[in-house]
Amino acid sequence: MDLIKGFPATSQNSSQLNISNIIKHAARNFGRQEIVSMKQDGTLFRYTYRDSYERVQRLASSLTSLGVTVGDRIGVLASNSHRNHEMYFGIPGSGAVMVLMNPRFTSQELSYVVNHAGIRFIFVDEDLLHTVEDIAPMCESVQGYVILTDKKLSDVKTKLEPIYGFEECLSNAGPIYEWPNLDETVASSACYTSGTTGRPKGVYYSHRDVYLQAMMYALNAMITMKDCVFQIVPMFHVLGWGTPYSATMVGAKLVLPGRYSLENLDEIIKILVQEKVTLSAGVPSILRAILNHLLKMDPSPDLSGVRFLCGGSEPPLSMMRSFWDATKAEIVHTYGSTEAQAIVTLNLPKPWLNKELTEEERWELKKKQGYIVVGLDVKIVDSSDNELPHDGEAVGEILLRGPWVLGKYHDAPGSEDQFTKDGYFRTGDVGTIDSEGYLKLTDRTKDLIKSGGEWISSLDMENEIVNHPAVLEAAVVGVAHAKWEERPLALVVLRDKFKTKVNKREILEHLATRFAKWQLPDEILFVETIPKTSVGKIDKKAIRAEHNEIYTDN
Amino acid sequence: MDLIKGFPATSQNSSQLNISNIIKHAARNFGRQEIVSMKQDGTLFRYTYRDSYERVQRLASSLTSLGVTVGDRIGVLASNSHRNHEMYFGIPGSGAVMVLMNPRFTSQELSYVVNHAGIRFIFVDEDLLHTVEDIAPMCESVQGYVILTDKKLSDVKTKLEPIYGFEECLSNAGPIYEWPNLDETVASSACYTSGTTGRPKGVYYSHRDVYLQAMMYALNAMITMKDCVFQIVPMFHVLGWGTPYSATMVGAKLVLPGRYSLENLDEIIKILVQEKVTLSAGVPSILRAILNHLLKMDPSPDLSGVRFLCGGSEPPLSMMRSFWDATKAEIVHTYGSTEAQAIVTLNLPKPWLNKELTEEERWELKKKQGYIVVGLDVKIVDSSDNELPHDGEAVGEILLRGPWVLGKYHDAPGSEDQFTKDGYFRTGDVGTIDSEGYLKLTDRTKDLIKSGGEWISSLDMENEIVNHPAVLEAAVVGVAHAKWEERPLALVVLRDKFKTKVNKREILEHLATRFAKWQLPDEILFVETIPKTSVGKIDKKAIRAEHNEIYTDN
Repeated sequence: MDLIKGFPATSQNSSQLNISNIIKHAARNFGRQEIVSMKQDGTLFRYTYRDSYERVQRLASSLTSLGVTVGDRIGVLASNSHRNHEMYFGIPGSGAVMVLMNPRFTSQELSYVVNHAGIRFIFVDEDLLHTVEDIAPMCESVQGYVILTDKKLSDVKTKLEPIYGFEECLSNAGPIYEWPNLDETVASSACYTSGTTGRPKGVYYSHRDVYLQAMMYALNAMITMKDCVFQIVPMFHVLGWGTPYSATMVGAKLVLPGRYSLENLDEIIKILVQEKVTLSAGVPSILRAILNHLLKMDPSPDLSGVRFLCGGSEPPLSMMRSFWDATKAEIVHTYGSTEAQAIVTLNLPKPWLNKELTEEERWELKKKQGYIVVGLDVKIVDSSDNELPHDGEAVGEILLRGPWVLGKYHDAPGSEDQFTKDGYFRTGDVGTIDSEGYLKLTDRTKDLIKSGGEWISSLDMENEIVNHPAVLEAAVVGVAHAKWEERPLALVVLRDKFKTKVNKREILEHLATRFAKWQLPDEILFVETIPKTSVGKIDKKAIRAEHNEIYTDN
Repeated sequence: MDLIKGFPATSQNSSQLNISNIIKHAARNFGRQEIVSMKQDGTLFRYTYRDSYERVQRLASSLTSLGVTVGDRIGVLASNSHRNHEMYFGIPGSGAVMVLMNPRFTSQELSYVVNHAGIRFIFVDEDLLHTVEDIAPMCESVQGYVILTDKKLSDVKTKLEPIYGFEECLSNAGPIYEWPNLDETVASSACYTSGTTGRPKGVYYSHRDVYLQAMMYALNAMITMKDCVFQIVPMFHVLGWGTPYSATMVGAKLVLPGRYSLENLDEIIKILVQEKVTLSAGVPSILRAILNHLLKMDPSPDLSGVRFLCGGSEPPLSMMRSFWDATKAEIVHTYGSTEAQAIVTLNLPKPWLNKELTEEERWELKKKQGYIVVGLDVKIVDSSDNELPHDGEAVGEILLRGPWVLGKYHDAPGSEDQFTKDGYFRTGDVGTIDSEGYLKLTDRTKDLIKSGGEWISSLDMENEIVNHPAVLEAAVVGVAHAKWEERPLALVVLRDKFKTKVNKREILEHLATRFAKWQLPDEILFVETIPKTSVGKIDKKAIRAEHNEIYTDN
């Protein structure tokens, strides 16, 4: 799409949006603001943006010493720590590209990413060494490994070589680094999508992308220096990526919990209360676990003013209400995409709607994904790419356009059909937009069930099944059917105390209050667990593969 | 300064930061938010961002009908109204350049601006027609005049021709406009500096500049959709410019007061209270007048949560305290520059300083200009351009760098010395930066008085004279002196009830508590008024010109 030239402006065109400016700004203007990080021994490490900036400069200097040059790719496999935060700035700031490695990827996927990106060095947490050791023999471009640990390097046991200690590198480097004036359109970092279909695909964010997204995210989520941001979402995850940049940009206090597990949330809750956290984020399963933990406390802590951004899938209304009732914390529904760097919509209450709507209506509204963040252009289109009205009724595929949205996957022949001719990215998600600008996801294009020429929303059906008090989790997929092309199949996990006490008929009756008879699943299987992808989403591909003959066998 | 290239990113490079996206976004996502505008008959006109966007599109369509093409310059001479807000988007959005015309400029200055910019059409308020009529014979490039009025065009009396009615143009134009995809680096708008020295100089802002500055301003001033922004600063003024873009971007309610005068603030105060304003801005003289008005009310209205950004010169501490004591409104000190589009620093309380400082210290801190806004790089340098430390002690010239800062004046040979070799803009202001990042202005380079090789701060001296209870206003300039090179001269306006009751000795004794004897002014002249520039600043050039021989005559 050609750009139209006009009358020349008089701006400083050599002044580029570079990531290093964000931490430099924080060090200068919010120098004494705290960063809190969980160490491997479980104690909290505290320092400031000013301290951090010195280490960020040392890191950049040490990259030069390692022989890293502008444009090199550096892999990072690490939990949420102050060291990871330093790498967020030091690696891109030096001109190298930080490739975020997802420890939930399989060895095949991870080694594919390393080779596809041509990674020269991998920075890895000591307790994730085994993951890298597994793939090292398959990774040809890697020249060395930098270990992130509180120990001395000589105390670290690994078969990797050559290895370097992160702390030793920083100690040996100078505390002042002259940042290169990078063209803002060059890559700063890369995420690989988990790929429910095919190989992982690389999204390479420019400095400009990250800078703009950080501003936009802080602006839309209203993050300020008064906030304490608790980064519990992994920093490599779309819902976590970007938040540390926003927090740093505005000088918010930042808390990084290191490695934690859903099974041991005591420490997380303790930090949440003790550090006076005001903003965090998570997928519904994490937030549900936190909620359950909070409900068990007597009394539950007062979390007035705390916002939890919730993405990945729709937060159940019951969970949002319980959070509010028990702690006064607010769940803010968001919708994001790796290809758009992070959030696309978020659902904060609009003052005029707050006045007009009843309490029930306000809660219902919170189930929508939210309105579009500043800077992004979202449209919904029919199967011929005609734009559909924003009337809350018309259902179409969601297309994204914006300065920090993906224009093409890196070196991924065959992926061109995910972009329209006029430059929009096809999300593969389907939904409506209402006249207030609220997006409501109804499904994924590939997860819509086509039965006899009509569509059935698997997402709606899952949500409705989960509303049944006996149900813990549910998945609905379309399975090939001789007569109807596809028919729905439901997998249901029952809560412990209801196991064996609920049958198929009861679930169908529950569904029948909201779905037409022809839409009801032909089969409901009660299972112990539902297959998940590496990022914790329901793995519909796996479910379909397992049950692909359930209706054709008959 | 060459940009360094790195590894390619995968972003949508054709997706540019265009001003039209801001209003489109507001119409879609904050469509029902209100814009309130004062009509010529004194009644309030109310409509929404959605209504506005239709008119913005009609405006852009009508420009095409007038024969305006991409890159053309359009002059705007208008008070703060919904029509002016529409022009903020419609003119740049179409690819033309909106040149802001300052009605306080002299005819010579205004006609110079029109000819220098090569303006093709002037959009002018009916009640400013006389200003344009005065300069029209000197403006060769102008092909027509568009009149902004609530009347029918046929009822408007003017000798200008050809004339067009703004409302008639919009009525005749289509409601849908396809925005051109403009290269974001082209000019969208231009401000001409008032020029205390030489001719007005043009700063041409790109779409990118305006978009980034709007994001940054909203982020730093924490403007959200919950705010009601009262635009009392003229929209052509550095302190007003940009605010409507930020308000629109985040969906804040916007109130535009039309034409008002300091002498008749009843209406302004009424709107302030009635519309539940939460954010406004002004120079100290306006805020002082508003305060006086509020103090006369019994009781003064409760303005808790209201922020008044104050720029142009230092807000007196007594005024900030009175605002707080009487109304709970907060004055936020800011420092801006036309060359940086708007604010450079702002002084909001940092949470950790709020905890540490005593109440007195917190008030003292509010006198500083504030910390640097996100995105700008500020340094202070000595006379050889060596960077000085941020220790709150070292005094140097303030240099600015940033993506939306001026790189060169438009077609202004001889102005190159206002930029350093490494791309910083020389503000001509002098000050300190402390370890918390707070900038404190001490003077303008050209207003520092050089006496016997030492510097005397005219600004400090003015502030100290004004602290004397008998003094209403004061100006201090350096005047040529045979022995000492320069010596200070003070002009003092006494308050009415102190006229003839205070003499030179008393003012000198007052100053002697803070200044060394050699720094005291050799002469103090009691005057009725102090010469001001077109933007209301003390016109030191005029004062020096009038009194240039006062010390050499002796």
